[in-house]
Amino acid sequence: MQLSFTSDEIAAIVHPRASRGATSAMIHGISALGTARSGDLSFLGHAKYKAEVASTQASLVLVPPGYLGDPQAGQLFLVVDQPSLALARVCARIEQSLQLPPRPGVHPSAVVAAGARVATSASIGPLCVIEEGACIGERSHLQASVFVGRDSVVGDDCRLMPGVRLYAGCQLGRRVRVHANAVIGSDGFGYELVDGRHEKIPQIGQAVIEDDVEIGAGCTIDRARFGRTIVGEGTKIDNLVQVGHNVVIGKHCLLCSQAGISGSTTIEDYVVLAGQVGVGGHITIGRGAKAGGGAAITTDISPGSYVNGYPAIPYLLERRIAVLRQRLPQLFHRVDALEAQIKELGGG
Amino acid sequence: MQLSFTSDEIAAIVHPRASRGATSAMIHGISALGTARSGDLSFLGHAKYKAEVASTQASLVLVPPGYLGDPQAGQLFLVVDQPSLALARVCARIEQSLQLPPRPGVHPSAVVAAGARVATSASIGPLCVIEEGACIGERSHLQASVFVGRDSVVGDDCRLMPGVRLYAGCQLGRRVRVHANAVIGSDGFGYELVDGRHEKIPQIGQAVIEDDVEIGAGCTIDRARFGRTIVGEGTKIDNLVQVGHNVVIGKHCLLCSQAGISGSTTIEDYVVLAGQVGVGGHITIGRGAKAGGGAAITTDISPGSYVNGYPAIPYLLERRIAVLRQRLPQLFHRVDALEAQIKELGGG
Amino acid sequence: MQLSFTSDEIAAIVHPRASRGATSAMIHGISALGTARSGDLSFLGHAKYKAEVASTQASLVLVPPGYLGDPQAGQLFLVVDQPSLALARVCARIEQSLQLPPRPGVHPSAVVAAGARVATSASIGPLCVIEEGACIGERSHLQASVFVGRDSVVGDDCRLMPGVRLYAGCQLGRRVRVHANAVIGSDGFGYELVDGRHEKIPQIGQAVIEDDVEIGAGCTIDRARFGRTIVGEGTKIDNLVQVGHNVVIGKHCLLCSQAGISGSTTIEDYVVLAGQVGVGGHITIGRGAKAGGGAAITTDISPGSYVNGYPAIPYLLERRIAVLRQRLPQLFHRVDALEAQIKELGGG
Repeated sequence: MQLSFTSDEIAAIVHPRASRGATSAMIHGISALGTARSGDLSFLGHAKYKAEVASTQASLVLVPPGYLGDPQAGQLFLVVDQPSLALARVCARIEQSLQLPPRPGVHPSAVVAAGARVATSASIGPLCVIEEGACIGERSHLQASVFVGRDSVVGDDCRLMPGVRLYAGCQLGRRVRVHANAVIGSDGFGYELVDGRHEKIPQIGQAVIEDDVEIGAGCTIDRARFGRTIVGEGTKIDNLVQVGHNVVIGKHCLLCSQAGISGSTTIEDYVVLAGQVGVGGHITIGRGAKAGGGAAITTDISPGSYVNGYPAIPYLLERRIAVLRQRLPQLFHRVDALEAQIKELGGG
Repeated sequence: MQLSFTSDEIAAIVHPRASRGATSAMIHGISALGTARSGDLSFLGHAKYKAEVASTQASLVLVPPGYLGDPQAGQLFLVVDQPSLALARVCARIEQSLQLPPRPGVHPSAVVAAGARVATSASIGPLCVIEEGACIGERSHLQASVFVGRDSVVGDDCRLMPGVRLYAGCQLGRRVRVHANAVIGSDGFGYELVDGRHEKIPQIGQAVIEDDVEIGAGCTIDRARFGRTIVGEGTKIDNLVQVGHNVVIGKHCLLCSQAGISGSTTIEDYVVLAGQVGVGGHITIGRGAKAGGGAAITTDISPGSYVNGYPAIPYLLERRIAVLRQRLPQLFHRVDALEAQIKELGGG
Repeated sequence: MQLSFTSDEIAAIVHPRASRGATSAMIHGISALGTARSGDLSFLGHAKYKAEVASTQASLVLVPPGYLGDPQAGQLFLVVDQPSLALARVCARIEQSLQLPPRPGVHPSAVVAAGARVATSASIGPLCVIEEGACIGERSHLQASVFVGRDSVVGDDCRLMPGVRLYAGCQLGRRVRVHANAVIGSDGFGYELVDGRHEKIPQIGQAVIEDDVEIGAGCTIDRARFGRTIVGEGTKIDNLVQVGHNVVIGKHCLLCSQAGISGSTTIEDYVVLAGQVGVGGHITIGRGAKAGGGAAITTDISPGSYVNGYPAIPYLLERRIAVLRQRLPQLFHRVDALEAQIKELGGG
């Protein structure tokens, strides 16, 4: 990553509310507060690192309005509402200069069925396979070794990274990003026990991914038994997440790594599941609810609530219990003592 | 999914014990009770949805013998032992009409070693790699970008979806289905610490997958250190499940998504592990045992038992404790109060 | 696996401290104590199996110095410091004879950009894709269908199994092994909420894998937001492990299957995380610390400590509590009884 910005160029990107101090240094790198050196841009993105601002060697620091400290000599603070977002915009500028736009067209090593439709502005990289009846939208980029099954639709401006597998009959909206080796539209896990053997329930539904969804590396999103598995507009899914058949995920949710959602569950809009959360089948998680890391959700969760634990209960209660359970050894001793005292007093 | 059945055609597939009501509607879709419309087939597959039968708009509903309600006008109820299974058979009929049978032969873009044996009725899709000494059975279908390593054997009537990786020297029985990007035969995780460095223990055994097994997308099944890792006949494995080296899984088990089984553990026949269950190494889970979602199994489990929790204990006990632990704050208060009262009474 | 060793040949590999008994059998197989037959090599690698030595049918058994039993007639015990390691060395000898060394050169079906540099001793298997500016070191072997993105560097003597995906700009040191379908350098999971939509934070950093690292099948290791995600020298990672952006993992760690590490966390040298451990973001796990299976680590962990539980606490305390919580039903009854007795005694 090579970069070079003046402080004025950074300010033009982040639109600061105010500034304190000044620097003549060219910005050549981005670094965390603790490791930054002269010529670096840094930021206060998490309250935990507040104390590091005073001693950082960064030449330019993005700080939130609430941070009141003064810069050192030769240091510039730019005050922005969301330092993390402001930094993201600087990074986006850098990213543009790093990435070559993909060349439209189909790589000669790709295998595209005669009956597939590929937009002329789309870019199909080496060793992709596109089956009969599939459709790839304008400007979409399949980087390499991507599989798009029969009759699947990839909308405009999508990016499918190497090794993505899209089973037959699935749909991706516009601006969908799917990371390497993710699988969309695999069979749901459904069997009926007949004479001691598990007979497969055919999975003839679809997986539908709406606009602006991002799906992490190695995720698996099953098609519906019938009907549709849906990932709603703007939802972002981290790596290695499992979404079972007939799950309906709302808009603008965040599903962190290794979370797993069992079949036929509904996740409403703006839900946030932390890493390794497990969600049972046939339940509903209400709009805006949050679950802490590793929570095991076994019942419906009310909109706006925040849960944690195994099984998941309200977050503050779980936190209280997590403390109290560490005192269980003493509690047992205290009850032992009480019983002895009662006995002495003639009770029991 | 386009379909069109008369109610008589549906009845011919599901063989109902009895029927109530009648419909003249053609069945054009399948839907859950709550969302079904006229012309849809629906079913009561889970007691949870019982109340929805009375108000469903479905034209034809598959109900179990225990459901006693009457249909609305123009609605037909077919009484079947397992509505879910009956529906599965309707879906299987639809699936047949949707899928084209794969064409026998090797796609010109596939890379098949001279010394590999591919049955003439097998279908090797685009960009597959089949190494020296490997063997692909009759009617087996490798959809695309599948890798079959040296001397591996794929039995008859298997289906390997895009991106499946089969390391050298592994065996798949007959009618095995492996979903996209699953890995079979990867090295087990074994090292010995020598002078502060982890020295690799070579993994020279096999992974053996018996007849009628289904393996989900993104699963990883390690080869044995020596000897065999085995997945027994008829066992079904959901997505992103990890099976460690030298694990022996019996017949007709169900392993739900994201479960993980550590090395050298034995899972007997008909075991069911729910999602995200973790099983330690060198233990045995007895025939027909079940574990609830996220259970952490650290000791042998008796045949037929049902466990849950972290660490896993008998299910009913875990459920009771899950309730009681929520009352820990009050319990601590009650013990505080008891201590004060005892003091007042002159104890302690 | 076909093999044939005399007992002297085995001894020459394992350098025993002492021997007891004798066998004239040729060693044709390796097996666990309980299933070994005449002609097999076995070993006592885990105290749990000690009782099985006396009855094993193996012709040759590797035992630790502390095992004092005598062999049966026709049986040879070789006493070695680490039986498991000694066996590993036998297996390494077998492995050498099983694997053909890869042929240097680029398979004609691979797609290698004009501006990529591939060492002449490297072996690029079928259907690999190597982008512009990437560099593959001496003797490295990309088995098949491996993707190496723009400007990525693979050091000398690496082995990348089928379906590995290396995003642009990443670095692998020397002797790195990456198993099938693992992904290195995927985008970190970072968004900022702006007007109700998650705006992507570009991930423009790198993923750096140091010398002698092994990475399991299906793992996902994200690139840094900026700067570097690092996996330190000699660290071994099992299957389906998630490593978030900007994570720094030290040297010689062991990360077992399905563990997940959230962004910006530091794992110091020689840390061991058992299966399904979850580690929160922005925390530090001190040198040599261990975490038991499924532990949920939410705070910094001191060097050398051993934790377990949800959330993770010191291992012995967690074990004690795991026992006591099973007695919660009785504890509640005991407190009920105490309250009744106090009341009787005139308290409250």
